[in-house]
Amino acid sequence: MKPLSRIEHSLAMAISSGEAPGCPPKLAGAIRHAVFPGGARVRPQLCLAVAGACGDDDPELSNAVATAIELLHCASLVHDDLPCFDDAPVRRGRASVHYAYGESLAVLAGDALIVLAFQVLATGATKAGQAWECEPRVNLADYQRAKTGALFAAATVGGAQAAGVSPDLWRPFGDWLGEAYQAADDIRDVVGDPRVLGKPVGRDVALVRPSAARELGLEGAIAYFDQLVQRAVDAVPECPGAPGLRALVRNESERLVPKAQQAELLRAAA
Amino acid sequence: MKPLSRIEHSLAMAISSGEAPGCPPKLAGAIRHAVFPGGARVRPQLCLAVAGACGDDDPELSNAVATAIELLHCASLVHDDLPCFDDAPVRRGRASVHYAYGESLAVLAGDALIVLAFQVLATGATKAGQAWECEPRVNLADYQRAKTGALFAAATVGGAQAAGVSPDLWRPFGDWLGEAYQAADDIRDVVGDPRVLGKPVGRDVALVRPSAARELGLEGAIAYFDQLVQRAVDAVPECPGAPGLRALVRNESERLVPKAQQAELLRAAA
Repeated sequence: MKPLSRIEHSLAMAISSGEAPGCPPKLAGAIRHAVFPGGARVRPQLCLAVAGACGDDDPELSNAVATAIELLHCASLVHDDLPCFDDAPVRRGRASVHYAYGESLAVLAGDALIVLAFQVLATGATKAGQAWECEPRVNLADYQRAKTGALFAAATVGGAQAAGVSPDLWRPFGDWLGEAYQAADDIRDVVGDPRVLGKPVGRDVALVRPSAARELGLEGAIAYFDQLVQRAVDAVPECPGAPGLRALVRNESERLVPKAQQAELLRAAA
Repeated sequence: MKPLSRIEHSLAMAISSGEAPGCPPKLAGAIRHAVFPGGARVRPQLCLAVAGACGDDDPELSNAVATAIELLHCASLVHDDLPCFDDAPVRRGRASVHYAYGESLAVLAGDALIVLAFQVLATGATKAGQAWECEPRVNLADYQRAKTGALFAAATVGGAQAAGVSPDLWRPFGDWLGEAYQAADDIRDVVGDPRVLGKPVGRDVALVRPSAARELGLEGAIAYFDQLVQRAVDAVPECPGAPGLRALVRNESERLVPKAQQAELLRAAA
């Protein structure tokens, strides 16, 4: 099964397992709305890519880790969109969860997704019969701005650990990649097309949030992004799948901030 | 160490472990505000009482389970108090978390406490070197009204499991006790003294929530409560500590809805 199919299948299984008889239908609806249809599923794909590069000798465990990371990511999006944070009406091209289901159900859906993430992880780890040391750790501090990076590191560390490889070597790769994504997000927030992004742009400026693009200017932010991508590429540990993984990072960076469009972006922003 | 001291010590360790360097101080403050000073710590005490009745051969694991349950409970209180739910200004006799720290930090603090609960559980289970089957399971449906009962069942099931005893036998005890607590809460919401409870009363009526006292009348609700307590007592499985545990339930029910005050309560409510 292709990585994306594995992820969608595991997510569907996880969400179904949470819908015990008697689960309030509106809450179940809000949870599904938060998870399906998804975005690019970047974090779980990264996790499976790392597991694959390391041999992926326990696909059930790597599926569980990838799924848990995506569920935590979806939870953070739901809570981020709440009126007390971004007050975002649109996410992934349609109504955000609180906009479609109300604020109470959005809070509950986010909570439920966090709980579900750990259930998936624990079930996967138990099935795998391994002592699982609770990676991905999600530091409390990471629940603010830094959470993008935390879930990327969780993806690389968790993928390596699921494949039975010492995970510490894989953390810097995830850290750099997470920072690169954050920088790309900042750039896209300034110059992106909301129809492509599926969410409003200009929010960082409107909400006075820290932003590479605001601090460095657009040209500086793009140079910073390129630097972060290079560091991520350099941080891929040596392993059979390393060349493929480095190519994946380069492709992904081209998708996020296309070289061909950079000149155009700079002209448009000027 | 006495059970309550064990619980406070474990909670303090858990909260400190979450305060990594760089944890935003306001978020750390909101988390501490949610956990300390606590209420009666009923759920973790129940968990340790069950573990004790079963021999408590792995105190580190039972501490972890008890602590995780209390952290989930604190998280649910923080989110329940939010403006989109109860909009409660007061909890445990002082400002609720969102009232003291704002809504955003209250959402984040609740999220962080859920994550921390699972980290504590996983760390405890790993240290204990056991395959831990992710009890306490918290069903998604339980995140609404039913969550009181869910955490009580988690406390009895988790306590038994931590002591290496088959957990399924212990679930009905927790279920009945959880229902009894809910009924007591309904009764106290109608007739309680807010100075004693440390939270506003009359919320069930104001918010048109299901309530035993509203449905059965006060006298009926008290009879219902007595019945639930008796069922909980009857549901304690046979084990060396069973008599002590039954006595504990009777003492606790007397604390919640004192017999001596029932006549007075009924007169006052009439």
